Amino acid sequence: MKIKNASILRGFTVSFIAGICIFLSLQTVSAQTNGQMVRLAKLVIDSAHLENYKSFLKEEIETSFRIEPGVLTLYAVAEKNKPTRITILEIYADSAAYQAHLQTAHFLKYKNGTKNMVKSLELVETVPLVPEMKIK
Amino acid sequence: MKIKNASILRGFTVSFIAGICIFLSLQTVSAQTNGQMVRLAKLVIDSAHLENYKSFLKEEIETSFRIEPGVLTLYAVAEKNKPTRITILEIYADSAAYQAHLQTAHFLKYKNGTKNMVKSLELVETVPLVPEMKIK
Repeated sequence: MKIKNASILRGFTVSFIAGICIFLSLQTVSAQTNGQMVRLAKLVIDSAHLENYKSFLKEEIETSFRIEPGVLTLYAVAEKNKPTRITILEIYADSAAYQAHLQTAHFLKYKNGTKNMVKSLELVETVPLVPEMKIK
Repeated sequence: MKIKNASILRGFTVSFIAGICIFLSLQTVSAQTNGQMVRLAKLVIDSAHLENYKSFLKEEIETSFRIEPGVLTLYAVAEKNKPTRITILEIYADSAAYQAHLQTAHFLKYKNGTKNMVKSLELVETVPLVPEMKIK
């Protein structure tokens, strides 16, 4: 009887520790990424087409933000000293939202309309330090 | 009488055109920057101190955002493939808000606490494409 009890107790202990480990690892994933896709798009634009490019990008950003709930932000900046260098902080609710974004008419219009204006594009996947951060 | 009328008319015309010019230039400044200071801080952190550095930065960001109305965002990301590379999108309401931020106890705690952890820091002044952009 003692042996059986010890065996049951050991089983419970192993299950309990495993449960705690799974719970903690899920908590960590949630705190780190919140399911979001966060990245930096770094572009260099042909200076001959810069104003035209920015007009395409502005329209694409404003439409995406307005009509796609899963596009959480597209914050684009041009460097003051090198205005052809554009960086965009892109936050999507999750990878499904990003995949849906790629199929929208406004994204395709931007992508096809600017393909000869973009000299280089680098997409850098990132982890946000404070995922709940907003812009006031 | 005709000469006087012509002179008055010319005076009005010059004033009107000057008024339009001033109005348009103010509109441009407002649309371009909205008075805000927007920049990218690009840092490389000593890998031996990365977790400690992130803990300092997280506390500084959360406090600044909570208690400084002029800190509109401090959105920090670490690159997934090069976690020691940190980029922060910083938006301040104006340069006075930024100058005030530099004097706060929480900023000085971060700055002094991390000075031996930061291998390089580049501050890139930028112009936002859509200054009214938010994070949902």
